Amino acid sequence: MADAIRVTVWNEFRHEKHLEPVKKIYPNGMHKVIADFLNAEPDIKARTATLDEPDHGLTDDVLAQTDVLTWWGHMAHHEVRDDIVEKVHHRVLEGMGLLAFHSAHYSKIFRKLMGTSCTLRWREAGEKERIWVVQPGHAIAKGLGEYFELPHVEMYGEFFDVPQPDNLIFVSWFQGGEVFRSGLCYHRGCGKVFYFRPGHETFPIFKDPNVQRVIKNAVRWAAPVETAVRPRSSNPPPLEKL
Amino acid sequence: MADAIRVTVWNEFRHEKHLEPVKKIYPNGMHKVIADFLNAEPDIKARTATLDEPDHGLTDDVLAQTDVLTWWGHMAHHEVRDDIVEKVHHRVLEGMGLLAFHSAHYSKIFRKLMGTSCTLRWREAGEKERIWVVQPGHAIAKGLGEYFELPHVEMYGEFFDVPQPDNLIFVSWFQGGEVFRSGLCYHRGCGKVFYFRPGHETFPIFKDPNVQRVIKNAVRWAAPVETAVRPRSSNPPPLEKL
Amino acid sequence: MADAIRVTVWNEFRHEKHLEPVKKIYPNGMHKVIADFLNAEPDIKARTATLDEPDHGLTDDVLAQTDVLTWWGHMAHHEVRDDIVEKVHHRVLEGMGLLAFHSAHYSKIFRKLMGTSCTLRWREAGEKERIWVVQPGHAIAKGLGEYFELPHVEMYGEFFDVPQPDNLIFVSWFQGGEVFRSGLCYHRGCGKVFYFRPGHETFPIFKDPNVQRVIKNAVRWAAPVETAVRPRSSNPPPLEKL
Amino acid sequence: MADAIRVTVWNEFRHEKHLEPVKKIYPNGMHKVIADFLNAEPDIKARTATLDEPDHGLTDDVLAQTDVLTWWGHMAHHEVRDDIVEKVHHRVLEGMGLLAFHSAHYSKIFRKLMGTSCTLRWREAGEKERIWVVQPGHAIAKGLGEYFELPHVEMYGEFFDVPQPDNLIFVSWFQGGEVFRSGLCYHRGCGKVFYFRPGHETFPIFKDPNVQRVIKNAVRWAAPVETAVRPRSSNPPPLEKL
Repeated sequence: MADAIRVTVWNEFRHEKHLEPVKKIYPNGMHKVIADFLNAEPDIKARTATLDEPDHGLTDDVLAQTDVLTWWGHMAHHEVRDDIVEKVHHRVLEGMGLLAFHSAHYSKIFRKLMGTSCTLRWREAGEKERIWVVQPGHAIAKGLGEYFELPHVEMYGEFFDVPQPDNLIFVSWFQGGEVFRSGLCYHRGCGKVFYFRPGHETFPIFKDPNVQRVIKNAVRWAAPVETAVRPRSSNPPPLEKL
Repeated sequence: MADAIRVTVWNEFRHEKHLEPVKKIYPNGMHKVIADFLNAEPDIKARTATLDEPDHGLTDDVLAQTDVLTWWGHMAHHEVRDDIVEKVHHRVLEGMGLLAFHSAHYSKIFRKLMGTSCTLRWREAGEKERIWVVQPGHAIAKGLGEYFELPHVEMYGEFFDVPQPDNLIFVSWFQGGEVFRSGLCYHRGCGKVFYFRPGHETFPIFKDPNVQRVIKNAVRWAAPVETAVRPRSSNPPPLEKL
Repeated sequence: MADAIRVTVWNEFRHEKHLEPVKKIYPNGMHKVIADFLNAEPDIKARTATLDEPDHGLTDDVLAQTDVLTWWGHMAHHEVRDDIVEKVHHRVLEGMGLLAFHSAHYSKIFRKLMGTSCTLRWREAGEKERIWVVQPGHAIAKGLGEYFELPHVEMYGEFFDVPQPDNLIFVSWFQGGEVFRSGLCYHRGCGKVFYFRPGHETFPIFKDPNVQRVIKNAVRWAAPVETAVRPRSSNPPPLEKL
Repeated sequence: MADAIRVTVWNEFRHEKHLEPVKKIYPNGMHKVIADFLNAEPDIKARTATLDEPDHGLTDDVLAQTDVLTWWGHMAHHEVRDDIVEKVHHRVLEGMGLLAFHSAHYSKIFRKLMGTSCTLRWREAGEKERIWVVQPGHAIAKGLGEYFELPHVEMYGEFFDVPQPDNLIFVSWFQGGEVFRSGLCYHRGCGKVFYFRPGHETFPIFKDPNVQRVIKNAVRWAAPVETAVRPRSSNPPPLEKL
């Protein structure tokens, strides 16, 4: 059997400590919930890392042993050290997968990988979201129907300033009148990046079975592919006689 | 363990009967060679079908039990029955994968799925092809280096009149001065289509280890993804109160 | 000054003859309304053609002198002659632009160019549509804001079985709970295709200023680009010494 | 008549001062040659800016009055001030076009917009390049044939670590055995970015008629499109009753 996919679930882990409603939903942090449902899969082996650990829990060793990194941050994006962001960026280009959830749209690492402002329209009103599948044959949509719903969410709306994705998997409808491209696949270097919109901290989004299904699918899609290619400058002699 | 991927290797199987040099390379037909290297994989179960069998070997039963269909044709594209093409097309939209090799660019089924002329520039001179990987993180490029070479091929050159692919995996260099987009991924309906350029009948292309590696990768990529989505017209009541 | 862009506005022109409510909105056919607002532009010269004219108004001469063809059809898609569809298809691959509006998603020519079923979810309830711009720098979004609204429309929802577009310009929100990719750009051969969702016959959609703006933008985007490339098979000698 | 497109041609302008062979080809700097052929067009108004001017010639005023910025740099990428790069980046997201030529692949601004390493394979051997058109209907390919040639160039080869483009226009063949995606269109924010491979300083590339044609086409394509969209965070009330 193939080796398990090694996932590091990264979480800012601040709201869960300081805000009662969030603490109630995720008493041990949302990273614990995410790691748990991933570890229930036989082919995935997840651990966690958080902002306030030394090196944000992302030492060279941890990164070297991570196949897929998942990222959640919100109020403390600016506290993430630039040198760690550089290391994560480097690892993605080498092949490590990155899954960015919800407010991670504005994290340093996601913005660096996108090259755009990653700004969007938002509203915290607990409204309904309906997530439609627009590329049903894609591995990330595995096991879903035409759509699934989240009863109470923070709204994210267009214009979402990100590059046109290589593959657009989901589009969200919101009760308040907006739409959002909510499942986006990108190739960057030898790595793969998936942005997934749901994940607001004041609703139990990461306990939703469809959200969990998508994340498990995305881990498998984003896992590194064996390759001898390295993103690097090289100055070789000609392959053909000049 | 997951069920094996059920592949049907379709071949026109005419050149191998009538042309000595081709018969020499593929005495039992190239479908036999392709099915054999696929069947050496524990997660793949391949059978074959050819033009001169009843219904071209593609009965409703066979199609219903095919996860991925591979296609090679050349001199007898026009002999493929339109009703069979319709059935294959329908199955792709339902989720069946289709791998089109080399001269299958001009097959009825590939042209129907692309919606363009699928014409190209070509030359039979036995020249060298060097296939460069341009999306190294994609599952179809697994295990490859920066490029691989085929010493003697028929040349295919741009302008290749196909839709811009969802993912461009390979670009070929030819000794005679041309380039070609030679590994192309498309989503169509719930199905996936991969066009792979190599495969000329007068060279032992399907015996090349890198070609075999790409085809095995592509089978796994193109295998259907479980989904409740069906491409169909539907006229449902509103999901929200109007 | 450059020559004007020659547009042929094609219309099925049946509903307007037989259905009172449609006749009331478009007494001379919707083609007349479309041609009129296009002809108000100094750089566009529009004429019309309809199903019941000889050759559906699309003689070889007319097609040869058309830079951009716009298409509206609904109840009589099957009456469009296959040989005319072939000619239109050929002209698109040669460079003629094609704009397909609303129910033209199911026209023979659009389905042929897409290669998929082009099926979708639909509902005739007169609900609200809000069309969001997701690629604001694209020529087709010129002059628009973040979104525009149509108060009463027929709903079209996902899954819309079309190829992933080269450029996705608009995404629609519907009151009843659906979303739709509603402005889609494709390159096919040397030609360009734009699908635009609005255009239902029982509402005065083609009189809406934003709809008109999009169509005028799309005409300019879809106009042929001078090129020496022709989609065709060719068998040239090598450009380099073998 | 529409206002002219205001282009600022930016050049590092170092090689032309210090290296005899480059000085000979571009005695007044390559920016002068580029601005001159652009100014020969009635609809374009070009000025220049260079690294050693105050603020690299890119003051707030200049940037505010620039529709399309063209960029050439090589040996002094690191001398470009980060605050100026930020301003250019901001202007692109607002709608300003950016054309990056040749070694600008490794400029700060291009790397920031791409989010990848932008590394590639290279060789300075004066070999032949043949640039093939793979999207002939695109405005940037206007007036070209199937391909054009540059007799002596620096080679750039794959793997080119950039995001998959929204539209791939050109693919290059090199005498030494490599290929390269050499004409790449990206939407970023409200702006458009075009990377064009040719432009090495020791050959008179910017005097080549086809290169000039492509650059003129690209200026017109990259010019800003009037829009009310702004890439920004916003927190509006719902558009529909919740």
